[in-house]
Amino acid sequence: MHRIVLIIEYDGTNYVGWQVQPNGTAIQEVICRALKKLTGDELSVHASGRTDSGVHARAQVAHFDTLSRIPAEKFSYALNTMLPGDIRIKASFELTGDGDYEFHSRFSVKQKHYRYTILNAPHNSAFTRNTALHIHSGLDLEKLNAAAAFFLGTHDFLSFKAAGSKSKTTIRTIYKSEWFRNGEFLFYDVAGSGFLYNMVRIMVGSMLRVGMGFESPEFILRALENPDRENAGDTAPAHGLMLYRVKYDEFDTEQFLSKAYLNI
Amino acid sequence: MHRIVLIIEYDGTNYVGWQVQPNGTAIQEVICRALKKLTGDELSVHASGRTDSGVHARAQVAHFDTLSRIPAEKFSYALNTMLPGDIRIKASFELTGDGDYEFHSRFSVKQKHYRYTILNAPHNSAFTRNTALHIHSGLDLEKLNAAAAFFLGTHDFLSFKAAGSKSKTTIRTIYKSEWFRNGEFLFYDVAGSGFLYNMVRIMVGSMLRVGMGFESPEFILRALENPDRENAGDTAPAHGLMLYRVKYDEFDTEQFLSKAYLNI
Repeated sequence: MHRIVLIIEYDGTNYVGWQVQPNGTAIQEVICRALKKLTGDELSVHASGRTDSGVHARAQVAHFDTLSRIPAEKFSYALNTMLPGDIRIKASFELTGDGDYEFHSRFSVKQKHYRYTILNAPHNSAFTRNTALHIHSGLDLEKLNAAAAFFLGTHDFLSFKAAGSKSKTTIRTIYKSEWFRNGEFLFYDVAGSGFLYNMVRIMVGSMLRVGMGFESPEFILRALENPDRENAGDTAPAHGLMLYRVKYDEFDTEQFLSKAYLNI
Repeated sequence: MHRIVLIIEYDGTNYVGWQVQPNGTAIQEVICRALKKLTGDELSVHASGRTDSGVHARAQVAHFDTLSRIPAEKFSYALNTMLPGDIRIKASFELTGDGDYEFHSRFSVKQKHYRYTILNAPHNSAFTRNTALHIHSGLDLEKLNAAAAFFLGTHDFLSFKAAGSKSKTTIRTIYKSEWFRNGEFLFYDVAGSGFLYNMVRIMVGSMLRVGMGFESPEFILRALENPDRENAGDTAPAHGLMLYRVKYDEFDTEQFLSKAYLNI
């Protein structure tokens, strides 16, 4: 049996998210269908985590087990001939278990990195309309970063968890939390041990209240200290969010991607 | 009568080009419809030039005449509420004639700048699939630039003109013609007094033969010296091409756009 790992990029605009849902097409479903065509088998594909409807991935990680003798590196090329243009396999390789341990896209994750993109300009753009949230009013970068800094470290993120999330614990550790500007674009980069359902989008929605001047940066501190969803801000729209990078002991998705990529 | 100028950005993927065609929706048509809604009048909208089906614009320029008392700067905001997301008005302003002379989006053009984008990587990208040509084989940047340099100056571009073009003269002047690389992306920037039908795409298609090693850079020189369409290469696909900038005596579209924009 071969455990094949895929590094997947997708434009989530036309999908209900990674996981199969009754109300539309899921990315997982499209990849399973292509694998069925390629190997003849119904294979289970496990990702590093779900992404919501409309959320994008620059580097989603998924794996499946197969008896197929197709060389691991060939899967990316073969799948790309079958997949729609908004889902691309950037790399494929085999990771075999060593005794008791087996690599797992979800359970072996060490760190996940998301990026949220905002176009802060008078008018929206025809080109980034599906990948950046357009905000025409002014945003204070210094205040956004003061707010973002409160997330660093280990906290109870209950205030930043959507209803319906079934996580056992709401404690998470954030390693990186910062905003930067490039021309009319504002980027929020956040890396953590893991994220609750809608957590990044609620973090962004809460910080935007600070960046727009409705709240002081301490709004974030209070929401962390008083764990209740009512103490945080709105959930920012899905289309600005991108799963940017996933790190494992075995590899870092960055190894497979160009440095300059999407670096607008 | 007010002559209103629009700076227009569009993702050309879903259109038959700027100009009205029998076989699909034109960008001109969509803008005219929005203006009709806004002013109540059927207005003629003139652009700096046509763009083909699938070609994009970062800064197309167009104008129309109206008796409407809507302040010129308000047109961009009002039109954007009515236009689809893949067409955005980045700015609107009034340019009134001074005696005999009247500004005209097409006849007053001093310089046009196009950009052609190539993703030179093993796999295509979900995000740039409609705005960059994917080429997985190696491209020699030095040879591309040696080829591009032959275009500089004033030449007969008959070899680089599509059949069906009705231009009076095939003599054009090129001010800038260069390739540069940013990560996995290759960009070709060309600025000239004006361009024949399909001219940039045939120039790119011809240079790609050089960059791939099928021809030496002098292939371009020979095509310029022996004006016949058969002496140039193929027409590169439309989706990599973007109308990037237009210069007039009165203004330069760059004044209205962020420097960092699409600078991947």
